[in-house]
Amino acid sequence: MSILKEFGDSEVFRAFATYVAVVLLKMMLMSVFTSYYRITRKVFANPEDAAAHAKGGDLKKFIRTDESVERVRRCHLNDIENIIPFVGLGLVYVLSNPELSTALLHFRIFAGSRILHTISYLTPLPQPSRALTFFIGFLVNASMAYAILSTISYF
Amino acid sequence: MSILKEFGDSEVFRAFATYVAVVLLKMMLMSVFTSYYRITRKVFANPEDAAAHAKGGDLKKFIRTDESVERVRRCHLNDIENIIPFVGLGLVYVLSNPELSTALLHFRIFAGSRILHTISYLTPLPQPSRALTFFIGFLVNASMAYAILSTISYF
Amino acid sequence: MSILKEFGDSEVFRAFATYVAVVLLKMMLMSVFTSYYRITRKVFANPEDAAAHAKGGDLKKFIRTDESVERVRRCHLNDIENIIPFVGLGLVYVLSNPELSTALLHFRIFAGSRILHTISYLTPLPQPSRALTFFIGFLVNASMAYAILSTISYF
Repeated sequence: MSILKEFGDSEVFRAFATYVAVVLLKMMLMSVFTSYYRITRKVFANPEDAAAHAKGGDLKKFIRTDESVERVRRCHLNDIENIIPFVGLGLVYVLSNPELSTALLHFRIFAGSRILHTISYLTPLPQPSRALTFFIGFLVNASMAYAILSTISYF
Repeated sequence: MSILKEFGDSEVFRAFATYVAVVLLKMMLMSVFTSYYRITRKVFANPEDAAAHAKGGDLKKFIRTDESVERVRRCHLNDIENIIPFVGLGLVYVLSNPELSTALLHFRIFAGSRILHTISYLTPLPQPSRALTFFIGFLVNASMAYAILSTISYF
Repeated sequence: MSILKEFGDSEVFRAFATYVAVVLLKMMLMSVFTSYYRITRKVFANPEDAAAHAKGGDLKKFIRTDESVERVRRCHLNDIENIIPFVGLGLVYVLSNPELSTALLHFRIFAGSRILHTISYLTPLPQPSRALTFFIGFLVNASMAYAILSTISYF
């Protein structure tokens, strides 16, 4: 299994692994937030979920939408839309053998921008806070895509 | 191309490849389910889809939401929310050189939990069946993130 | 860092990296389209977004859904549902050491089908244009899953 060990020795790869874990853990936190709001506010999407919390009351009353839940879900979906490109592009970017310092700069800015995006979305902070954090993460992904296409592209 | 061959010789990597294929095929099945329900129940989101099935009838009647379709779509979205972390974390976890038996345990439990989650969601089984299957998959992802951060992290 | 350099020398890997960048950039474009429609049509999901564009008018008027925005969002979600399997399966498929010509065929057909899918969805073209483009991308993913499971599976 020497090939897997070699990856563990590469600092660029280790940096990628670290920030992938950070942004994916942050994204997983959104599921926890959604469950928390659904349970504390008794807002459910499925009758079987409402039944587990309604304790004999009218089920229909609990199957509804709630602005706090919808806000967390929009934030979660925005994570999905931006973290998929980060993981996919980041991986092939790492394998295109970039400078450690350049790669770290990309990963740190992306992770920071997504954490600030979540804070901007859930507080919520006035715009353009959230738009700005979104845009910075977007630029990091675009920059990695550019690096990939300009160094190792093979159409 | 010797480097790609070496991956094919790594049992940990082969196990990861296998379970990634299994959970992604299961997720792709949700698209098939959605299409099946949309066509058999004539429930469409786009006028051009309704036109292809309405055969001259009133289009608007077929552009609506239906609880069976929405259930499949919620199940699909939950897959997306959990399978992205599995693929992303799983890949860097594998490259952090874990024990084969530990890695297999993670992959098998995750794949099993997501298959049971789909069954719980689509039947639907009474809660907490679905909550439990979700939570087990979530723990597997958290455990891989912990393993990554505690062995190869580089901030 | 010799191991990362070796990847850059593999033509199959470089082809994968190229088409991953292409399909993810295409997917990222959907965020740009959504923002464009939201701003030009003044259709927002959050009060703080409406406030930044309403210029003192009634906020509620701008918090609504609009068919053009919803269409882009459905197209974006369909991308997510299909590009996740492509990235995940594609990566382990590449590491299963396929023929360069076979791999290129998969990647080119997938990227082409997703670009045509977006054009079919946003024009919109009459069905079955979009259904067909979706189905072709789906088959490419299924074919890679089959190749993985039949060559390197380890359950």
